[in-house]
Amino acid sequence: MKKTLIKNGIFITLNESKSWLKGFMVIEGSRITYIGEQAPEPNEQYDEIIDGSHKLYMPGLVNTHGHAAMTLLRGYGDDLALQIWLEEKMWPMEAKFSSNDVKWGSYLAILEMIKGGTTTIVDMYDHMNEVAMAIESSGMRGVLTRGVIGLCPPEIQDAKLKDATEFARNWHGQANGRITTMMSPHAPYTCPPDYIEKIVQVAHDLNLPIHTHMSETSREVQANVDQYGLRPVAHLEKIGVFSRPTLVAHGVHLTDEEIQVLKQYDVRISHNPGSNLKLASGVARVPELLRAGVKVSLGTDGAASNNNLDMFEEMRLAALIHKGVSGDPVAVPAAEALLMGTKMGAESIWLEDVGLLAAGMKADFIALDIDQPHFLPKTDFVSHVVYSASAKDVVDVCVDGNWIVRNNECLTLDEEQIKREFELSFHRLIG
Amino acid sequence: MKKTLIKNGIFITLNESKSWLKGFMVIEGSRITYIGEQAPEPNEQYDEIIDGSHKLYMPGLVNTHGHAAMTLLRGYGDDLALQIWLEEKMWPMEAKFSSNDVKWGSYLAILEMIKGGTTTIVDMYDHMNEVAMAIESSGMRGVLTRGVIGLCPPEIQDAKLKDATEFARNWHGQANGRITTMMSPHAPYTCPPDYIEKIVQVAHDLNLPIHTHMSETSREVQANVDQYGLRPVAHLEKIGVFSRPTLVAHGVHLTDEEIQVLKQYDVRISHNPGSNLKLASGVARVPELLRAGVKVSLGTDGAASNNNLDMFEEMRLAALIHKGVSGDPVAVPAAEALLMGTKMGAESIWLEDVGLLAAGMKADFIALDIDQPHFLPKTDFVSHVVYSASAKDVVDVCVDGNWIVRNNECLTLDEEQIKREFELSFHRLIG
Repeated sequence: MKKTLIKNGIFITLNESKSWLKGFMVIEGSRITYIGEQAPEPNEQYDEIIDGSHKLYMPGLVNTHGHAAMTLLRGYGDDLALQIWLEEKMWPMEAKFSSNDVKWGSYLAILEMIKGGTTTIVDMYDHMNEVAMAIESSGMRGVLTRGVIGLCPPEIQDAKLKDATEFARNWHGQANGRITTMMSPHAPYTCPPDYIEKIVQVAHDLNLPIHTHMSETSREVQANVDQYGLRPVAHLEKIGVFSRPTLVAHGVHLTDEEIQVLKQYDVRISHNPGSNLKLASGVARVPELLRAGVKVSLGTDGAASNNNLDMFEEMRLAALIHKGVSGDPVAVPAAEALLMGTKMGAESIWLEDVGLLAAGMKADFIALDIDQPHFLPKTDFVSHVVYSASAKDVVDVCVDGNWIVRNNECLTLDEEQIKREFELSFHRLIG
Repeated sequence: MKKTLIKNGIFITLNESKSWLKGFMVIEGSRITYIGEQAPEPNEQYDEIIDGSHKLYMPGLVNTHGHAAMTLLRGYGDDLALQIWLEEKMWPMEAKFSSNDVKWGSYLAILEMIKGGTTTIVDMYDHMNEVAMAIESSGMRGVLTRGVIGLCPPEIQDAKLKDATEFARNWHGQANGRITTMMSPHAPYTCPPDYIEKIVQVAHDLNLPIHTHMSETSREVQANVDQYGLRPVAHLEKIGVFSRPTLVAHGVHLTDEEIQVLKQYDVRISHNPGSNLKLASGVARVPELLRAGVKVSLGTDGAASNNNLDMFEEMRLAALIHKGVSGDPVAVPAAEALLMGTKMGAESIWLEDVGLLAAGMKADFIALDIDQPHFLPKTDFVSHVVYSASAKDVVDVCVDGNWIVRNNECLTLDEEQIKREFELSFHRLIG
């Protein structure tokens, strides 16, 4: 088993007493086996000893909601309202996507994300075999799900559910366990209740969690009330979604009572601040959710509504907007935003050994080059990571004990080929 | 006169018909003399011909409010309310700043900013000779002002005003015209009215504009009402500030009537979205200000309340938060945010030949490496610059026709010395 020592690095530990330390970390195989200020046993043999001076090591970032292939729509139809943007811009273009388009759109997203320090993603889309193969070859971690829209005849509904079920069954636990799966009705407004109930039944049969969009816009909440007589939380509760472990994307428009229901069922929220702002969906009640004990993580959403896939920005937005909007300067402090992007992110998608630098955890970590003006003075590194860093400060990325990016270079994917094939796909789509 | 041709680049022009073009730009001496899709006269001789393929050229960014030396306080006292942060954290530390500290704090900020594509800054601080010398040697452009706080005995008030006046007189037009100056009462709540009137008189005598903080927090607005019976806009109008060309920082808490008064006097607003959010000051009424015809530009404020000095982030925040908070997805579209960071920024500080790529304008421009995943597909480059780019995408920076950064390397400043001296200053201050 390969054994690596990193010495003289700054390590973000997020311990309650001390949020970072200067010291040493040992990786054996796929796991961290030691981290501390003291050098480990001096006579130990290592396959590699890395000088971590001038670098800051932290857990890899966990992006809990996205649609990787939507990189193909980055900058297409900006500055529009969600429903118009979805119905007039996104869906017509997405209807043209072949599995080859999804392949290269996803590869481009994965390349951007891993080079920017994201080591785990949730991805909900179609043609998911392509996404899973891209995740497998990239070396990153993925919680993947075929999102189904049920506004179609029963036989098409059935075919989609069959596809989603097969995908979830075939890929769960693959890629040395780096891939897990979920079942996903796209949203309460795109799936009839009986269809959602069928999807929930599959999730029960396969013992898998549910992922869905919910309460992203006030219009959608009102439509749910008009159609079903219930707000989305009560509606999903009623049709049994929360009988499965559930991760909900957005959750922007929630009442106090709904927050209590989400807490009661341990439903997790993927907060997507950049996308919610850009689509003018609103500002989620993150301080209230956190206070209620709901697990809140962070997602970029697709590149069409963000527009980059930089998780440092999502952490920064989470730390900034809730202060500015609530008037409370201690709302979502830096350390909490960092937890949302790492440990709480991993817990939100049922990964218990990812998201923290500690002995026994999976070796999913990244290194930032901190020998740069915006990381000075060398004081509060948690503050610097949240308020000052960006994806482009990331130089090294390790997942499951394997280096996938080193010195800014992706070791697992052919960057030039991906960019070339991506542009070909894009030109075919708009051609 | 040196003559340079850049060929095959993407150039952001922000023309109404077409926001960018693929083509050619010629620089002669300190000015742009040609930009267009057609190659210029083929027999022309050039001192340098640059292949601009894979690069996006745009105007250098204009940061209209900051306190460069506050890099020394980056990450010091995060997540506090403005008044506590100022009174208990910033001011006691700043009182200890020597001119040497201001020198190295400013150099670090300037290094961060120019490498990140900012070519012009407004700086309001103390020990301004150090700031001016740093601007001069960096090659960037600066609109500089000694900010004075008048909560002190008359003889100290007089000494400060004398210092501010001498600085403004001595440095206006220096560094080949790259430095201009202003007069600055720090804020209505830190300067008695009669002291502000004296400062305004000096601005009249020297024919210089005024720069001040105003209406940053609701508490400050209320205190102004309590003390003077007027909200800050009416108060400053009454004591004659707006009889001079005026640039106001923040302007978060404004009524409709106040917006009309600002428009009437052509007062310019430096919007600092990152700082306003972090200090929980609120969200400025930028869509209303723009609709009223007020010139709104962007500022980072000091690094202690931001915490980086990345103007791409300020453009992105300006484009995002007003959508999310107002619920209007077309509030502050990408092109408007980009204008705020460039052309409107330059106009806001009375620089008429900066902030736009066009023949006759000063050659203040930057190049971004767009051969990266987050700039694909190659569609709407204005969208990509605002919603996807960051300071670290900048590779080349030219100010007044001189390259000051090339291939990510600063040609005018000694980066290693600056980082070393900065850390020495910081450790003396906290020691």
